Amino acid sequence: MPTLAEARALDAADPIAGYRKQFALPPGVIYLDGNSLGALPLGTAARLGEVIRREWGEGLIRSWNSADWIGMPRRVGAMIAPLIGARADEVIACDSTSVNLFKLIAAALAMQAPKSNGGRKVVLSEPGNFPTDLHLIAGLEAQGLAERRLAPPEELKAALDDSVAVLLLTHVHYKSGAMHDMARLTRAAHRAGALVLWDLSHSAGAVPVDLNGCEADLAVGCGYKYLNGGPGAPAFAYAARRHHEALQQPLTGWMGHAAPFAFTDDYAPAPGIDRLLTGTPPILGLAALEEGVRLIAEIGVERLAAKSHALSEFLRVAVAQTAPGLPCVSPQDPAPRGSQLSYRHPEAYAIAQALIARGVIPDFRDPDILRLGLAPAYLRFEDCWHAAQALGEVLASGEWERAEFRTRAAVT
Amino acid sequence: MPTLAEARALDAADPIAGYRKQFALPPGVIYLDGNSLGALPLGTAARLGEVIRREWGEGLIRSWNSADWIGMPRRVGAMIAPLIGARADEVIACDSTSVNLFKLIAAALAMQAPKSNGGRKVVLSEPGNFPTDLHLIAGLEAQGLAERRLAPPEELKAALDDSVAVLLLTHVHYKSGAMHDMARLTRAAHRAGALVLWDLSHSAGAVPVDLNGCEADLAVGCGYKYLNGGPGAPAFAYAARRHHEALQQPLTGWMGHAAPFAFTDDYAPAPGIDRLLTGTPPILGLAALEEGVRLIAEIGVERLAAKSHALSEFLRVAVAQTAPGLPCVSPQDPAPRGSQLSYRHPEAYAIAQALIARGVIPDFRDPDILRLGLAPAYLRFEDCWHAAQALGEVLASGEWERAEFRTRAAVT
Repeated sequence: MPTLAEARALDAADPIAGYRKQFALPPGVIYLDGNSLGALPLGTAARLGEVIRREWGEGLIRSWNSADWIGMPRRVGAMIAPLIGARADEVIACDSTSVNLFKLIAAALAMQAPKSNGGRKVVLSEPGNFPTDLHLIAGLEAQGLAERRLAPPEELKAALDDSVAVLLLTHVHYKSGAMHDMARLTRAAHRAGALVLWDLSHSAGAVPVDLNGCEADLAVGCGYKYLNGGPGAPAFAYAARRHHEALQQPLTGWMGHAAPFAFTDDYAPAPGIDRLLTGTPPILGLAALEEGVRLIAEIGVERLAAKSHALSEFLRVAVAQTAPGLPCVSPQDPAPRGSQLSYRHPEAYAIAQALIARGVIPDFRDPDILRLGLAPAYLRFEDCWHAAQALGEVLASGEWERAEFRTRAAVT
Repeated sequence: MPTLAEARALDAADPIAGYRKQFALPPGVIYLDGNSLGALPLGTAARLGEVIRREWGEGLIRSWNSADWIGMPRRVGAMIAPLIGARADEVIACDSTSVNLFKLIAAALAMQAPKSNGGRKVVLSEPGNFPTDLHLIAGLEAQGLAERRLAPPEELKAALDDSVAVLLLTHVHYKSGAMHDMARLTRAAHRAGALVLWDLSHSAGAVPVDLNGCEADLAVGCGYKYLNGGPGAPAFAYAARRHHEALQQPLTGWMGHAAPFAFTDDYAPAPGIDRLLTGTPPILGLAALEEGVRLIAEIGVERLAAKSHALSEFLRVAVAQTAPGLPCVSPQDPAPRGSQLSYRHPEAYAIAQALIARGVIPDFRDPDILRLGLAPAYLRFEDCWHAAQALGEVLASGEWERAEFRTRAAVT
C-alpha cells in the first residue's frame, strides 16, 4: 500500500495539479464519478450568468448574430476536434449522444444499403455495449432499415462479413473500462467493406483518440462526462471529411439545411458537417459545454491521459491491498484501459451507497459493478489514497449491510 | 389612430399587466419578437444559478435523484399540458421540436404503414409550412418510409384520401399568423382514417389549444417562443393516451426504455409518454423552460389569449393608420389569427433593421414578411402604439433605404 505521504508527493509533482482549483468541488467529497457527470468548472457559472442576463435578457433575438449563437455548434465542435484527432470541420456539437447515434447509424446504412453495394444492412456491435447504442440499432431495425448483429470482442473480426454495413463500438467500455484497439478494428472493418462508428463517450477528454490517424469514418461522444459540459449537455458528432458529400442523415431539420433562413419547402443539406444539425441549437447547454471543453483542451489530452494512467495504477495497487478479495474487472495493463477501475461484488449497490455516506462518490452499474472513475483534470493521488482506504474499511466493517444502503433510488 | 392616452388606459385596465415586471426587458426596447425568442423571466436567472452552483456543483451526480433531474421531462411536460388541453401524462419535454417531429411522424407511419392497414405512407401537409416540418417528412421519404404530399389549406380535405397516414400541420402559421381550425381538420383526417400531428410552436402559451377536446392524436411544440424557455430550449411532445401502447418511435434511446438503469441489451419501451424520450435530459435547458412555463401557466392561457386578441386588434388598427399602404397578410378577423400581425413589403428586411435601430424589434421572414409578434405576458398597448408610430415614420422617411439596413446578417 502506498502511503499518504507518497500520494501527496505525487500530487506535488503533478504538472496539471493546478487545474483542480478551476473546478467547484464540494468540500469533504472525493468524486470518482466524473465519467458519469463531470464536475462544474468555476468559469461555467460566470459564463452562464452572462449568457442568460446579457445575451438572452438584453440581446434577445439579436444575439443569434451578435453573440454568434448560430455558430456555436460548429465552434464547440472545432474545440473538441483536437481532443479526438479530428479536423475542426469534422466535428459538430448538438443534440444528445443517442440522437447523434441514430443520425450516424442511419447515415451509414444509407451509404451501404443500396443494392449496388450488396444491400448491406447489418449493424455489428458487441453484447453489453452501452444500452443506448444497442437500442438505437433496434429502433432502425423496427423500421426495417437495419439488422442488428452482436458478437463478443474476440469474435468481431469473424463477424465482419459482406453483409455488415457498419461496425458500432464504444471505444472505452462503460462498465469494464476496457479499451478497443481503434486502429486495428477500423482496419478490419474497412477490409470487410464496412464503415466504423465509434462511440467516444468514455474516451473524449480522458484518453488519446486519433480518429483521423485510424481513418475512422464516424463517431459520437458525450459532453457531460470528461468534457464537463453539465448534466445532459449537448453531445458531439464526427464525420470524416471524405464522407461529408455522401452523408445523408434522416433527421433533416432546418438547421442542417444549406440555407435555413431561406425558408424553402424542399430540403437541401448544408455542404459540410452542418448537415448533421437538426433543430435550433440549445444555447445554454452549448455555452456550458464550451467552458468545459475550453478547460480540457487547455490542459491537453496528452497530459490528461498520462495522469489518468498514473492515477489508475496508483488506485489499482492501493485497492489490491485495502480490498484484496475484490475482483477487478478492468484490464490490469493500463494501456488498454480507460480512465476508470471497475470491481465486481454482488452487493456493489450497497457498497457504493456506504462509500457515498463517507463522502466518496463512486458509481454503481447494474447488477454488480462498482465503478471508480478517474477524471484527471481535478482528481488527486491523495483522493485515490483516501478512496482505497474507505473502500477497504467499508468492506471490512460490513457497514454496507445497513438497510438504508440497500434501498434503490430511481437513478442508480 | 388610437391615442397614446388610450393605449395607456388599456394598459391600466389590463388584468395581467403586472406580470411584465417579472421579465427582464431591456430599457428602450419594444420587443415584438417574443414568438421567435421569448423574453427572459427574472426567476430564470436565479433558478439557473441554483441549478448550476448547488445542484450540479455541490450535488454532482447525486442530483439526478436528490433534485429529481430524472423526473424533469415528465414534470415540465405536465406543466405544459393544461396550456394545450392535454392530460399531465400526455406531454413530455425533451429534444428539439424538429427531433420530436421526426419521432412522431415516424411513430404515426409505424401505426399506419402495415399492409393490414392498406400500407398508408403519405404524410400530408401544406406548402409553405414551417420548413423543418416539411424537411423532416423529406428525411423519412429519403429512407423510403414516407411519401410527402402538399396541398394548400383549401384543398387539404380533398387530399385526405385512403393513402394518407398522417396530416401534419402547424396550428398557427409562422409567417401569416393564420390559424387552422383544429377541431374541423382533425375530424376530417379521422374520417379519412388518417392521424393528425399538430405543430403548436406558434400556439402554446399564446392562443387556446384543446388537443383532448379535438381528439387530436399527436403534437409537438416549441419551448423558446411564448413559453420563454430560452434560446434553443427543449421542446415538447404530446401523444393522446389512447395511442401510448401502440406508439413506436424510432429514436429508441436508453431514456425511453422501460428500465433505463437495468442496462439491458434489448429495447423495451417505457409504458407511457416516457417512451418518447431518447437521450439524457438536458437539465440546464429544462430548468429554464420550467421557469418560463411556470409563469405562463400561472397567468393562464385564457387571459393570455384575451390580451393577445386585444393587443393585435389595437396594433392592426393603429398600423392601418400609420402605414395605410402596407398590406397585412394576417387574417383581419382576430378569431382565426395567432398572436402576431404580418405585413408584406419587398424591402421588409431593411424595414425591420431600421425599426431595430429605433429600438423596436420585429422579425423578418424571407423574402418579404415583416412580422410583429405579440407576447401577451409582457407586451403593453403602449408598446404597440409606439411600434405603429415607428413603423409609420420608417416608411414615410425612407430611412430603411440606408445601405447598413440592407446588409443581411447570418440569421435573418
